[in-house]
Amino acid sequence: MQTVICPGSFDPIHNGHVDVIARAAKLYGNVIVAIAHNSAKKYSFTLDERLAMAQETFEYLDGVQVELMPNVLLADYARSRGAVAIVKGVRNAADFQYEVQMASMNRHLTGIETVFLPSDPKFSHLSSTIVRDVTRYGGDLTPYVPRPVQKRLEVKVTETGLED
Amino acid sequence: MQTVICPGSFDPIHNGHVDVIARAAKLYGNVIVAIAHNSAKKYSFTLDERLAMAQETFEYLDGVQVELMPNVLLADYARSRGAVAIVKGVRNAADFQYEVQMASMNRHLTGIETVFLPSDPKFSHLSSTIVRDVTRYGGDLTPYVPRPVQKRLEVKVTETGLED
Amino acid sequence: MQTVICPGSFDPIHNGHVDVIARAAKLYGNVIVAIAHNSAKKYSFTLDERLAMAQETFEYLDGVQVELMPNVLLADYARSRGAVAIVKGVRNAADFQYEVQMASMNRHLTGIETVFLPSDPKFSHLSSTIVRDVTRYGGDLTPYVPRPVQKRLEVKVTETGLED
Amino acid sequence: MQTVICPGSFDPIHNGHVDVIARAAKLYGNVIVAIAHNSAKKYSFTLDERLAMAQETFEYLDGVQVELMPNVLLADYARSRGAVAIVKGVRNAADFQYEVQMASMNRHLTGIETVFLPSDPKFSHLSSTIVRDVTRYGGDLTPYVPRPVQKRLEVKVTETGLED
Amino acid sequence: MQTVICPGSFDPIHNGHVDVIARAAKLYGNVIVAIAHNSAKKYSFTLDERLAMAQETFEYLDGVQVELMPNVLLADYARSRGAVAIVKGVRNAADFQYEVQMASMNRHLTGIETVFLPSDPKFSHLSSTIVRDVTRYGGDLTPYVPRPVQKRLEVKVTETGLED
Amino acid sequence: MQTVICPGSFDPIHNGHVDVIARAAKLYGNVIVAIAHNSAKKYSFTLDERLAMAQETFEYLDGVQVELMPNVLLADYARSRGAVAIVKGVRNAADFQYEVQMASMNRHLTGIETVFLPSDPKFSHLSSTIVRDVTRYGGDLTPYVPRPVQKRLEVKVTETGLED
Repeated sequence: MQTVICPGSFDPIHNGHVDVIARAAKLYGNVIVAIAHNSAKKYSFTLDERLAMAQETFEYLDGVQVELMPNVLLADYARSRGAVAIVKGVRNAADFQYEVQMASMNRHLTGIETVFLPSDPKFSHLSSTIVRDVTRYGGDLTPYVPRPVQKRLEVKVTETGLED
Repeated sequence: MQTVICPGSFDPIHNGHVDVIARAAKLYGNVIVAIAHNSAKKYSFTLDERLAMAQETFEYLDGVQVELMPNVLLADYARSRGAVAIVKGVRNAADFQYEVQMASMNRHLTGIETVFLPSDPKFSHLSSTIVRDVTRYGGDLTPYVPRPVQKRLEVKVTETGLED
Repeated sequence: MQTVICPGSFDPIHNGHVDVIARAAKLYGNVIVAIAHNSAKKYSFTLDERLAMAQETFEYLDGVQVELMPNVLLADYARSRGAVAIVKGVRNAADFQYEVQMASMNRHLTGIETVFLPSDPKFSHLSSTIVRDVTRYGGDLTPYVPRPVQKRLEVKVTETGLED
Repeated sequence: MQTVICPGSFDPIHNGHVDVIARAAKLYGNVIVAIAHNSAKKYSFTLDERLAMAQETFEYLDGVQVELMPNVLLADYARSRGAVAIVKGVRNAADFQYEVQMASMNRHLTGIETVFLPSDPKFSHLSSTIVRDVTRYGGDLTPYVPRPVQKRLEVKVTETGLED
Repeated sequence: MQTVICPGSFDPIHNGHVDVIARAAKLYGNVIVAIAHNSAKKYSFTLDERLAMAQETFEYLDGVQVELMPNVLLADYARSRGAVAIVKGVRNAADFQYEVQMASMNRHLTGIETVFLPSDPKFSHLSSTIVRDVTRYGGDLTPYVPRPVQKRLEVKVTETGLED
Repeated sequence: MQTVICPGSFDPIHNGHVDVIARAAKLYGNVIVAIAHNSAKKYSFTLDERLAMAQETFEYLDGVQVELMPNVLLADYARSRGAVAIVKGVRNAADFQYEVQMASMNRHLTGIETVFLPSDPKFSHLSSTIVRDVTRYGGDLTPYVPRPVQKRLEVKVTETGLED
């Protein structure tokens, strides 16, 4: 059994994330879902909400833990948690081009590898932005997000309008 | 004759948009140019200005109507207006990769199709951002925007600086 | 009702093709599936076989006809058949980049438009090459090709090895 | 320790391959380098030569074995060898777009995962084709291929011209 | 004044090539159009024909010479001719991705730089393959190729069918 | 000797920029590094800081001057400084797709050419954003930025947190 890190802002977590994380858990045995928070960035959900949604989503999936990513280089964090690699889902060539930059820097800085898992085609058009759009316009969220997220999205949109 | 929707923020409308819309009008007979407004986004022109510029541009082109896109899922709006499809101009692979995500979501949510029309090569490097840049630096706008837009851009830049 | 042309070599036709053609038939009413044959190219199936497989596939789908594309510019052929446009399925950015060149030439040569329909994500990884690979290695073809194609692939592979 | 498969034609193996395979060996413990042979394809080196070059290259690297890939679906082969995943090096967005199709088919056919390792930037412009070109024109091969390959390339080019 | 090399197979030379070469001549003063010949590749036109078409095309353009590229590394050839750089026209992201590999190898092997000139958008959909297609189907070639090429294409197509 | 312009926001300048500028200086003889400032954009470093860092970086490199880009069309500025072309480093296909739009507009507006120099692969994953990230998380900056930048980054991060 190996430990890997799946980092992201998960604002909110959606079924494309869940699919990649569940496949990584099956492949490696142990996945740490690391919720990143950059104080300079605006999020639709607070850090606590993003953590809670991810924790409720993976409550019953063995081998997946959710935690806050500390404010250190991703590679150092991975090392401190005994992770052998970072795992990123990649949906398309644009994702790949961005992630390969981050992966290369992380490897050169501390030697940690990033492995890419290709998204399942049925989730390749899904993103947190699109989830927020669908919510804002009243579309049915069931196929796109786990149940704990769906409930919070419906509350959030009436409270804040879920602006980007 | 069929009705199709050409959605966008049109901030401002430029000759690349006009070319795609005129071609769609010839192909389908009836085009609704739908001006989208997201209250969370910043625009260079107000919604009223964007509507007015599009309306003046298409005043004499049969089969093109301009209207405000209501705050509902694009697919539902298309349906309510009797549109058989959404039409999007696509300039390059990056455009395609973004639009295919939206198209896929719209189709899965309510079954509406999005068809892509490739930009004419002579407009493939044109964007609203580039139009604003050219204005800001005093370049000649004649080849890039319809006349009603050109006049307003020249006024706007002296008033606001046309910041992005 | 409008007529559109879906051209291709269809060597062999697979479920990604079928999906795009059925959607085009629903959108436009009448689709001509035009089987292209370039005597300088090698095919896995003869022209007659490719025609037969497509015809059997669409036998019961109203509004779809299959025919041999004559040896003229695609745009001229479309015109002679009363077609308002060419329709091409596009799976990814690489497809788009290739098809946009052909589309642009066809439009400049004779004014015919090409509209792109994005592949359904569940078929976005399917190609005739991959279908031939799966056959060669004995994989289950049911999810990938229509039944008339499946039978012929199984015969062909034992006869010829289905080389590329 | 886990077993993974690195498949390819390796015609010939170059330092970009070696780097990815060595990193995979460090990450997973056991790598099977599987030399693929498609009788319908032309190669610069025979299957025996490609096997020998790979074997000599990895002779002293623990955890790497080289073998001929049998003529079955890659996914079935991986399963029969107890491999948990296929590993592919990916140099750029074009590589990714191709490999993601194969990966998706392999996963849908038999459930085997493919994980992508990004090439080290210093090898991202290297390919077997470029290695053959450099040889043909008498360039210095030292930075690009392992020593056993370099010697054979120099012999091969005088014998056959190393045509593509 | 500087000398640069524009290499290619030019099978045949078309107006997209001519535009890039003329712009390079204006920018650098002296351009060597180097016709590459790989005996392992099939061409539509013989080396002599490709040379003649290029020579006739540039007969009256000062600062452009056409010659056969000798069978050495492109970088060595450039050096022997006193060229400061290789110039390549680039039409789209796919072109770029391929050319950047060649450029990187050439620079690492002998230090020669490759500079990319972006195609004029009106030629961004033009290629030698498309020129051959248009010829084969009897389309009007005037906008796409120089006159000396047009005449030879029309002869060639009746003699050989201009297969790819 | 020719003069070229290398424009950018350089927030901050990093070793990928330095490599391209030094290569351009060798190729053309004279390079003007033009620091762009858009009052509507947020920067990590003030204009004065960005100027100072670039000036200190190139203090000892003959043929490179650093100056503030005036608020006019880039093409007009290039002309006023006697520059024959704009030079842009391009790291990947996404960079290319963006830069080709700007290049095309600049050429159509005033005839100035933009030539692209491909990044050295070892810098192809480097960007000002990644440099800021590495600083924020305490990574070693030595391989990524010139010394004058490194010192200022370390001061800046303790003062402001270096938010994007």
